[in-house]
Amino acid sequence: MLPTIYWKDGRVLMLDQRKLPWAEKYLTCRTVKDVIEAIKNMVIRGAPAIGVAAAMGVALGASKRNLGTHQAFYKHLEQVCDALRQARPTAVNLAWAVDRMKALAEANRNRPVEEIREILFRESQTILEEDVAINKNIGAMGADLIPDGATVLTHCNAGALATGGYGTALGVIRAAVESGKKIQVLADETRPFLQGARLTAWELEKDGIPVTVIGDSMAGTLMRSGAVQVIVVGADRIAANGDTANKIGTYPLAVLAKTHGVPFYVAAPLSTIDLSLKSGDEIPIEERPAHEVATVFGKPIVPKNVPVRNIAFDVTPHELVVGIITEKGVAGEPYEAAFRRMAEGQ
Amino acid sequence: MLPTIYWKDGRVLMLDQRKLPWAEKYLTCRTVKDVIEAIKNMVIRGAPAIGVAAAMGVALGASKRNLGTHQAFYKHLEQVCDALRQARPTAVNLAWAVDRMKALAEANRNRPVEEIREILFRESQTILEEDVAINKNIGAMGADLIPDGATVLTHCNAGALATGGYGTALGVIRAAVESGKKIQVLADETRPFLQGARLTAWELEKDGIPVTVIGDSMAGTLMRSGAVQVIVVGADRIAANGDTANKIGTYPLAVLAKTHGVPFYVAAPLSTIDLSLKSGDEIPIEERPAHEVATVFGKPIVPKNVPVRNIAFDVTPHELVVGIITEKGVAGEPYEAAFRRMAEGQ
Repeated sequence: MLPTIYWKDGRVLMLDQRKLPWAEKYLTCRTVKDVIEAIKNMVIRGAPAIGVAAAMGVALGASKRNLGTHQAFYKHLEQVCDALRQARPTAVNLAWAVDRMKALAEANRNRPVEEIREILFRESQTILEEDVAINKNIGAMGADLIPDGATVLTHCNAGALATGGYGTALGVIRAAVESGKKIQVLADETRPFLQGARLTAWELEKDGIPVTVIGDSMAGTLMRSGAVQVIVVGADRIAANGDTANKIGTYPLAVLAKTHGVPFYVAAPLSTIDLSLKSGDEIPIEERPAHEVATVFGKPIVPKNVPVRNIAFDVTPHELVVGIITEKGVAGEPYEAAFRRMAEGQ
Repeated sequence: MLPTIYWKDGRVLMLDQRKLPWAEKYLTCRTVKDVIEAIKNMVIRGAPAIGVAAAMGVALGASKRNLGTHQAFYKHLEQVCDALRQARPTAVNLAWAVDRMKALAEANRNRPVEEIREILFRESQTILEEDVAINKNIGAMGADLIPDGATVLTHCNAGALATGGYGTALGVIRAAVESGKKIQVLADETRPFLQGARLTAWELEKDGIPVTVIGDSMAGTLMRSGAVQVIVVGADRIAANGDTANKIGTYPLAVLAKTHGVPFYVAAPLSTIDLSLKSGDEIPIEERPAHEVATVFGKPIVPKNVPVRNIAFDVTPHELVVGIITEKGVAGEPYEAAFRRMAEGQ
């Protein structure tokens, strides 16, 4: 697999996910502004990958020269963190990574600026490497839930491209395959950004895992016909009660899964769980620009003057989620207690 | 509204629905083969419109000269009818229209060929005009089911473009608007052919009925938030028990509607009801070419070598359908008895 994001000569390189599967090109971010634009424009997407990008963005912001005093450096860092936090609203990993970087800078206020820069750079690299390790643990925790011979349905892309590497939902699938099971994947195309058709299909094919792309509307009839044994998706933010925000179209899948007795799992690192929110009602849901739905390859697919909604995420209530696979184990009802036990065990 | 299909100088003209909303162009069919290709390639689609096209196709086929004997004419007519019947499998109106034309030809075997040609031509025109009249009756029967101020969700295009004119599901909406109600429409974009984004939006905007296009995956979260008061869709074939085949994505909508207490209606002429089939399990479901999903505007959206499914229809079980609106009234459970009463009343 090509790396999703990495440091090179003091710059952050991101595999440009807008261009996949047509081109495997990296975008170079020289400034924190470049990183913010890349997150907003979905050069990089997926909650854990956004977290890694934000951490690297803080480190890039901290590398700015000629700030004069130690105090000016910290003021600038504050602005960098605020700007990054606002890049996208739903994925909580963004704020989680920024807060972690900021706390580390605060804890090292007594050091010279050059040392703090180095500490932040190394921390962003640690967050990247930890994320890959966490995903491998998620995979190990979830692999048993995938029966041998199963057809696994997934939505959007919760793979290597959505994370530092290996993936959350696709990490579970990879781990099941690595354990010797024969697995096939059905990937929802995931309108409007086509993460399933473009990204999930691309990375599974690279790994030699059999994948078939279906229209988002086809999942229901395939479940009804018995063609789906299990569903695993990622998450952008999970409330304390287990309500899960994920890519638009996840909630209908969960309702259909319940209707057809197909187990529905969420795979996500603990950093995606936001214990400050009681339920999914409190999760901010991003509505993105209309043109992402209304045009394809720049050409309109909707008559001029007709309005278009582009709701980017939905919330799946915890009652529909059979289990949430984290790096510490598989959480079940009541979710809050399970999450708190896992967080304490860290 | 521009006519969907009409006769001009012995040729059948169809508004080319592959080109909407970008161009309002007519395709000219000179032979029955042209009509079959137009149906297969979705120049015209929608069960009632396919029925009208097939009737005109029979008349075009019958107009072929130099067949020699009366017997040769009937043999040719038989071939024409068989070829038309195989153009698409799911919409029963196709077979219904062909059978009606064939029976009329059989009933007039004693006449000279030239007269039979004229009878078939007039019958195809009658089927077109009847279809518009039927849709106005469907509208009148269904308008009361749409509350004033409602937001109505629909899927695919069951409008003027899917019929001889006026529409089935959109006919109900048009009739509600004509009765003075304030109605807004949410149109699912309807991947892969984008009938909602391209066609439903186009024809409702022409009529000045407020319409907003949404991604297919957004309907569930909008229902959950209370933004949808009623759903009306069309049908391609309805079994005796009320099980309804319609555009892929209809079944998930019906499940979500049930979950959220949103009434889910089907609007269709009696010619869409196939009393020879006990349940939806017997309805043939078309799987169309992969490239319709795998490419947009000719450009791939799925990596090469990754397989793609393109299931064109699904079946909604009758338990999820609150009522089926026909030109004779609104059928409810038990559907078979209601359908038989309506058919006898014809």
